[in-house]
Amino acid sequence: MSDRTGTRRADFEGKAREATPLAASKPAAPKAAPRASAPKSAALKRRNGAGPLSLGMLDGHLGYYLRRAQIWIFQDFIRTLEGLDLRPAEFSVLAVIGGNKGLSQADVAQRLGIERARLVRLLDRLEKRGFTQRLPSPTDRRSHVLRLTPPGQQMLKRAKALVMVHEARLIERLGPAPHKIMIDALRDFDR
Amino acid sequence: MSDRTGTRRADFEGKAREATPLAASKPAAPKAAPRASAPKSAALKRRNGAGPLSLGMLDGHLGYYLRRAQIWIFQDFIRTLEGLDLRPAEFSVLAVIGGNKGLSQADVAQRLGIERARLVRLLDRLEKRGFTQRLPSPTDRRSHVLRLTPPGQQMLKRAKALVMVHEARLIERLGPAPHKIMIDALRDFDR
Repeated sequence: MSDRTGTRRADFEGKAREATPLAASKPAAPKAAPRASAPKSAALKRRNGAGPLSLGMLDGHLGYYLRRAQIWIFQDFIRTLEGLDLRPAEFSVLAVIGGNKGLSQADVAQRLGIERARLVRLLDRLEKRGFTQRLPSPTDRRSHVLRLTPPGQQMLKRAKALVMVHEARLIERLGPAPHKIMIDALRDFDR
Repeated sequence: MSDRTGTRRADFEGKAREATPLAASKPAAPKAAPRASAPKSAALKRRNGAGPLSLGMLDGHLGYYLRRAQIWIFQDFIRTLEGLDLRPAEFSVLAVIGGNKGLSQADVAQRLGIERARLVRLLDRLEKRGFTQRLPSPTDRRSHVLRLTPPGQQMLKRAKALVMVHEARLIERLGPAPHKIMIDALRDFDR
């Protein structure tokens, strides 16, 4: 078995950092995510002025487009929340803890579909910044209950305001109807 | 400036391997991508039997759902093409070269939105396996023209058949209408 196969297996099982589907993980010059400049057709033309470039068999395959969009969204999210120093994964964890009373770590990991070990690292960082607490569970001595501190609630509130700005940008870019259709179609997609 | 800020900047500029938006990059137990088992509501319940878990403020934010779907699609793509030992990025490159005559490396990098250095590594691997060739450009001595070899054409043909199986699974899961709406909405999303 070659190294390459081993690498792929690691990616596949989600243990390595994620590799790229359909060649779109590292977009060139991604510094201006919400750019509205440059005519759309420009990137489709060859540099030597020959006809437009075809995607060949890639065209019509959703995964390719979805990946490119997801990278754009990720970059826009990070940029929008830069002032709070809050990463997307951290926002997710705060949002789920803030939205439920008496959650355990297992609950959060399960709901967000992330590995326990990764959640523990996230919670360590959030706790260090004073946003979350792990308290002894009143019903299960082996477990903890998670909650937001008042500064954590405040951070979540500020983050929410910025995430709404980010989401509004997305809605504007996609159109309100496709945005809603996509949320409805993807909500339970991987369950 | 902390290390953490440095890390984020690297992610943001697409130079580091991609981190995770909205906590969904490393789904727990992703081994059974096309599973149809387990009632959908199961994952929403707490392990202690309390009420369903809320996503809190995450609900309604497209990026979160999109990221989870993108991971599922990526895993399903890799599994489906496992027998060909062809990664998604390699498929993309073969498809674009196969779909256009006289492409340069710059053309392919631009069309797929990937960095030149990464494309060079991809082409090195594809060339080593005998699928692609870099020929001197007839019009530009500093450039090369890319083309598929006959084995490369054969590989692309076999890959296409499997990618269609993968896409059919996606269409079944999303429904044909949302699938089409999403392709149309995302086709030029990041341009």
